[in-house]
Amino acid sequence: MTFSAVNTIWVLLGAALVFFMQAGFAMCEAGFTRAKNTGNILMKNLMDFCIGTPLYWLFGFGLMFGAGTAAFGWIDPFILKDYAHVLPSGVPLWAFAVFQTVFCATSATIVSGAMAERTKFSAYCVYSAAISLFIYPVSGHWIWGGGWLADMGFHDFAGSTCVHMVGGVCALIGAKMLGPRIGKYGKDGKPRAILGHNLSIAALGVFILWFCWFGFNGASTVGMDKDELIEAASLVFFNTNLAAALATLVAMLFTWLRYGKPDVSMTFNASLAGLVGITAGCDAVDPFGASVIGICCGLVVILSVAFFDKVAKIDDPVGAISVHGVCGALGTIMTGLFATGTSTMKGLFYGGGLKFLGVQLLGVFSVIAWTAAVITLVFLIIKATIGLRAESADEIAGLDRSEHGLHTAYAGFTIMADSTAEDSAPEIAPAEEYEAPVRAKKEKAPEAPVYTSVRIVCRPASLENLKQAMNKIGISGMTVTNVMGYGAQKGKPEYYRGTPVDVTLLPKVQVDIVVSKVPVRQVIEAAKKALYTGHIGDGKIFVSDIENVVRIRTGEEGYDALQSE
Amino acid sequence: MTFSAVNTIWVLLGAALVFFMQAGFAMCEAGFTRAKNTGNILMKNLMDFCIGTPLYWLFGFGLMFGAGTAAFGWIDPFILKDYAHVLPSGVPLWAFAVFQTVFCATSATIVSGAMAERTKFSAYCVYSAAISLFIYPVSGHWIWGGGWLADMGFHDFAGSTCVHMVGGVCALIGAKMLGPRIGKYGKDGKPRAILGHNLSIAALGVFILWFCWFGFNGASTVGMDKDELIEAASLVFFNTNLAAALATLVAMLFTWLRYGKPDVSMTFNASLAGLVGITAGCDAVDPFGASVIGICCGLVVILSVAFFDKVAKIDDPVGAISVHGVCGALGTIMTGLFATGTSTMKGLFYGGGLKFLGVQLLGVFSVIAWTAAVITLVFLIIKATIGLRAESADEIAGLDRSEHGLHTAYAGFTIMADSTAEDSAPEIAPAEEYEAPVRAKKEKAPEAPVYTSVRIVCRPASLENLKQAMNKIGISGMTVTNVMGYGAQKGKPEYYRGTPVDVTLLPKVQVDIVVSKVPVRQVIEAAKKALYTGHIGDGKIFVSDIENVVRIRTGEEGYDALQSE
Amino acid sequence: MTFSAVNTIWVLLGAALVFFMQAGFAMCEAGFTRAKNTGNILMKNLMDFCIGTPLYWLFGFGLMFGAGTAAFGWIDPFILKDYAHVLPSGVPLWAFAVFQTVFCATSATIVSGAMAERTKFSAYCVYSAAISLFIYPVSGHWIWGGGWLADMGFHDFAGSTCVHMVGGVCALIGAKMLGPRIGKYGKDGKPRAILGHNLSIAALGVFILWFCWFGFNGASTVGMDKDELIEAASLVFFNTNLAAALATLVAMLFTWLRYGKPDVSMTFNASLAGLVGITAGCDAVDPFGASVIGICCGLVVILSVAFFDKVAKIDDPVGAISVHGVCGALGTIMTGLFATGTSTMKGLFYGGGLKFLGVQLLGVFSVIAWTAAVITLVFLIIKATIGLRAESADEIAGLDRSEHGLHTAYAGFTIMADSTAEDSAPEIAPAEEYEAPVRAKKEKAPEAPVYTSVRIVCRPASLENLKQAMNKIGISGMTVTNVMGYGAQKGKPEYYRGTPVDVTLLPKVQVDIVVSKVPVRQVIEAAKKALYTGHIGDGKIFVSDIENVVRIRTGEEGYDALQSE
Repeated sequence: MTFSAVNTIWVLLGAALVFFMQAGFAMCEAGFTRAKNTGNILMKNLMDFCIGTPLYWLFGFGLMFGAGTAAFGWIDPFILKDYAHVLPSGVPLWAFAVFQTVFCATSATIVSGAMAERTKFSAYCVYSAAISLFIYPVSGHWIWGGGWLADMGFHDFAGSTCVHMVGGVCALIGAKMLGPRIGKYGKDGKPRAILGHNLSIAALGVFILWFCWFGFNGASTVGMDKDELIEAASLVFFNTNLAAALATLVAMLFTWLRYGKPDVSMTFNASLAGLVGITAGCDAVDPFGASVIGICCGLVVILSVAFFDKVAKIDDPVGAISVHGVCGALGTIMTGLFATGTSTMKGLFYGGGLKFLGVQLLGVFSVIAWTAAVITLVFLIIKATIGLRAESADEIAGLDRSEHGLHTAYAGFTIMADSTAEDSAPEIAPAEEYEAPVRAKKEKAPEAPVYTSVRIVCRPASLENLKQAMNKIGISGMTVTNVMGYGAQKGKPEYYRGTPVDVTLLPKVQVDIVVSKVPVRQVIEAAKKALYTGHIGDGKIFVSDIENVVRIRTGEEGYDALQSE
Repeated sequence: MTFSAVNTIWVLLGAALVFFMQAGFAMCEAGFTRAKNTGNILMKNLMDFCIGTPLYWLFGFGLMFGAGTAAFGWIDPFILKDYAHVLPSGVPLWAFAVFQTVFCATSATIVSGAMAERTKFSAYCVYSAAISLFIYPVSGHWIWGGGWLADMGFHDFAGSTCVHMVGGVCALIGAKMLGPRIGKYGKDGKPRAILGHNLSIAALGVFILWFCWFGFNGASTVGMDKDELIEAASLVFFNTNLAAALATLVAMLFTWLRYGKPDVSMTFNASLAGLVGITAGCDAVDPFGASVIGICCGLVVILSVAFFDKVAKIDDPVGAISVHGVCGALGTIMTGLFATGTSTMKGLFYGGGLKFLGVQLLGVFSVIAWTAAVITLVFLIIKATIGLRAESADEIAGLDRSEHGLHTAYAGFTIMADSTAEDSAPEIAPAEEYEAPVRAKKEKAPEAPVYTSVRIVCRPASLENLKQAMNKIGISGMTVTNVMGYGAQKGKPEYYRGTPVDVTLLPKVQVDIVVSKVPVRQVIEAAKKALYTGHIGDGKIFVSDIENVVRIRTGEEGYDALQSE
Repeated sequence: MTFSAVNTIWVLLGAALVFFMQAGFAMCEAGFTRAKNTGNILMKNLMDFCIGTPLYWLFGFGLMFGAGTAAFGWIDPFILKDYAHVLPSGVPLWAFAVFQTVFCATSATIVSGAMAERTKFSAYCVYSAAISLFIYPVSGHWIWGGGWLADMGFHDFAGSTCVHMVGGVCALIGAKMLGPRIGKYGKDGKPRAILGHNLSIAALGVFILWFCWFGFNGASTVGMDKDELIEAASLVFFNTNLAAALATLVAMLFTWLRYGKPDVSMTFNASLAGLVGITAGCDAVDPFGASVIGICCGLVVILSVAFFDKVAKIDDPVGAISVHGVCGALGTIMTGLFATGTSTMKGLFYGGGLKFLGVQLLGVFSVIAWTAAVITLVFLIIKATIGLRAESADEIAGLDRSEHGLHTAYAGFTIMADSTAEDSAPEIAPAEEYEAPVRAKKEKAPEAPVYTSVRIVCRPASLENLKQAMNKIGISGMTVTNVMGYGAQKGKPEYYRGTPVDVTLLPKVQVDIVVSKVPVRQVIEAAKKALYTGHIGDGKIFVSDIENVVRIRTGEEGYDALQSE
């Protein structure tokens, strides 16, 4: 027999598992961001794979694995040449090709998370194509395709650098060039938390990724027909699992110490950090080395997320830069410290001297340089042509609508109004500038103090503005309800599966304010100023009488009950 | 050794993956339909598998794989006879049996999606049993059990026809016989979009299905112990992935062109179309052939969905007829065009002449004939006995309640009122027929124009009626809120895990209308007429005064602010 | 070659699949409980694995598989000794170690479900550690590590007793010691249904578990290089699937008969019951035996859930005690009845006499004794030190907030107020004790009967109290709306990914009551009494006039429309 059944089974199963990582990335990214962008995020995670797959077949595979030069392979459309020099023993070309295709798509999909919630879908398709077409294949050739880094003995077993760091670097530059999401930073420059809309699916995404990582790392032996391969695969499984578990554990303890409570979202992030970190050296370190790598990644990812959020002020909604970029580099370099030498390379701490560590460092920095240079160029071209960032109004309304004409990804649920809009409330004149309310409350007896209910129905995106405007005129109590306003939608129809969507109920928020001392007219004018955009749908204000108000805690009634507590 | 380890591992892993498709189908169908039917849909996808498994053990397997005749196998309850003639080399009977069981269940589950949201659960159980018991096994015998189509050289590698098209044909006939969901078609006959309630889980379903398809197609070599099997499995993986990716890509571009924006839901559908299409010939075509098949399926599925929706007016909530029926047939026929001849059969475009293509066509049409005839009979019997379609009132309230006594599948969330009810608002008398409001607003001074707030609290299913009634009397602004009405539920209790559910908060919608010119009494009478059913829970109307109304965009106050914009 | 490729592939794939069960357990537990605890539940299911993994490496594995004595293995930190005596043929140590690690974590995670929604997170971490560190390893040694039960011929193929029953016994004792969730039992002692918040993810969890069970049971042959192993694995797959399907089918029919409708949640539970039950004997029984075991488990799990819920009054939110504990024991014992003798042991019904059955019974009861004794001690120590149960206020508000500072796991959605609070409404004075309303409605003419709207905005957790208080004073109609109250949160900030969360919109419920006969003052006083806690956020009451009220069904207006129907 020419081919090996066990090797091919191993590679093909790895391919299936690594494909399934797309589901993990999609659920993670969708869950950690806001509901109004969910459709867009699902679509991006599907499309990077569906764009990358044919392009990798077209050029990427040849560029990466062609004999070519030390810098890149060859131009071989549709993988027609001979790849015997690079095929794993006993594995048919198409098995190896599909295995490499799914790895390539992983690299592309990482970028999506960091640039979520504000990137144009068309721009996404273009840069995603660029990554699959030449950015990933070229540095991939250096490392896995017989290029110059491979020749020097650079070791990146399953792709901490080759796959994850490449994605992470693109993510960093993309997020920096895009700028933060509207509302991410206050006027004081301080970051604000923008909560993920659905942690259940985010957590599911992490579990899926961990599961699939056994394929990602384990199947990277690309063979199981020799004792050393079987032993390597076994060690890879054990190390991968151990490093991820320790990264998670340490991160939980660290957030518990630092923030007083174990943080759910960050801890789930840390699992991925451990997985990324161990990927480069999972075959080369022993379980102790894997533990140290896991622990370091668990700590570093938290500090790194804080650094990008608070110091560098680069808005990365899902932590992709820290998880894939920083921990990818870290894991690769730490392999230069902890490799035990059983798989030919010896780390610094195991008597290998500085040479191997130096090669690891050189590899990391040259891949950063290549990736950063080319992706910057790609982003600049996109910016100059089709544009990189979505319009502000579209971003506030959600990319589901602007990019896909999708009313909502969650038509079955009442969606919480997103109040992370920009600090852009117009200045409101102070109270004394206002004339007295137009309609005197003369028809009521003076012994019955009258309170007035002001009900404002407006678009959800304006809620933050309204809140700030009310704050400025001293309104200290509001009740906000998600409602639906009736009215036919004007303009271009939205389609769902090709049928125009008949949307007659538009999401609105209703804000109820009861005032006594603050003149009603002032509230109305401040609200009008805060809500006015000149477009249909700015909303309405309803004024009515209230007989009495009681604060439950203190028993105060009337005017006193309305004062700030 | 009698048995082959690699062959058996391959078959068993395939079985596990194909089982997991049930999760994919369940998530897809649930996500693309409405929240009020989610429990029912989850249950159906579980039960078709749990009904099919014992029945396939009881009769199905023997009928399909028994030596028997060219038309069917034999009656062999509990798989006790000898199947050496059909077992793959080195694979034990039970491994092959479990592998075939999960394929059978896939066929049954496809039907569920097309008939979703309106089929009685008992009817579902019965026809699902019929598919597993004899419909699928008989045509399966023709193709895979050594029957007449197998003898003629019909090629359906992993079941485009045998599994998917059989499911798709049953889906078509079932959806046609059921008729469309209430509200799917307007009085003008035009289809309306009924949005899926949760695209996150629908997308997850598609990712799961794609992942499992590597088992579905890949493991259909049912062996890995020969070079040609290993090569075939490798090619199958590559082709499957490529066809699905191209179908998705092409569908995205096509919807972008056709509807102005890339459609999320349709694009995810197209991935499945590509997977179904490549299933018949994934071992027989080269990657170019796979590309063409993928591209054709991506285009055809969109046109087919539009055809059934708009022309044939057959309501298929998830597109199962187009994805599994149409693309299943298409992929089988295209194998007759693109088979390269390396696996013994040659397609028309590769010099194979018309004979092989003819066999493929014959196979497709005879399986359509068999399936259509028998399932029609099954549906007719169900219709005449236990009934096929749920009561209208149950359908409007949701099958979770009527079929399973399940209050809601999403007790943690506020559910968006479903406004896709029937165009059945009663005729409202024109304004002049009404007498003046009973309570004259005489106690208010004439210089203070009075506006009246009418608040209507009613059952969610009546919202559409109310909206239409209000429209007819010229009401142009309504605010709708999802609320809960307090009240003990009467009648039969609902159980959750065997404990009666103490439901004291029932979902209601609250509609706030502020009127000035339209007489309040007219609004009340119109609302009463629109909402009256005579059952407890019809709702209440509250009338109160409003002092003033302001439209934010124009600054208009009072009467003007209430006019339509 | 020293190692076997197929054996190692089999074991490693099993490990990956059994790891993925964590996702299944997490989704199941989260879905079957309330949204306010979702973050905590996801975190628990992640952390038991991440705590268990390093501890099992540290001590657990040595304790379980060390040669040691008949009672336990040896102390071997970090698995450094020689395990040749116990390693499966041709499988490297690390492959076997990772396979055993994921089994251990499964046992720990089972407990989580039964103790959900009320256990302190710190307590969870501690007892979860104890299970992985010594409870599971010691009884595991008896059964799988060459201990005394193994010597006697006790048969527990993949862990009905060893893994599931150990988890189930800990779950029983934990749930008993914790006591039921607040609101689970009424003052009359009757259990109340507390609905799961998200059945879609719960169902997904069940599908994931079933899928992974093919790895759990199938890979427990720990080898595929001999005919008997290949045959065993094939039979295991077929039996596992068949038992689960029949358990599900029977449970559906049984709930249909018993409660009038097929129950969704219980039926999904039954799938797991069938899987747990068949785990002990899946290699030793034939498909008929598997059917009987599946059917028995499907029936028993329903009776057992009812028993614990209604008779024993032990609150087990997800049915873990019944599924894993009861069906784990049942399956192990039934193996003593149905083992066919092909795999060396013969059950009672196949002529094996009482000896083998006796050993099975002895095994089950000694493992129950060991587990119960040690976990009781562990829980008592936790109770005496850090405390086992969360504070009542934290439990009512949800553990996401108290344990993790997580505002909500579903920031994108409007969450349904959870009304399962305790029966603790304060006693309200009867109507005659109250003086007449303070503000006489004197400014209105007597011919216009006046109705008054009382709007109460309060914290969601107080809704149940308020409802009961209103009931007592004869209020029979309320409209409840989920709203958000505006106000800066005081006290310790909550962090999301390290950034303080700026929560200015707090979830509240708004209750609208319209009264006529009941004096308004009485309503206000009753509400104040029911809602008063003395903390900021107790809420406010707004009183205003209503002009008229109409009941739609009867056409009654005014006073009559407000009376109970």
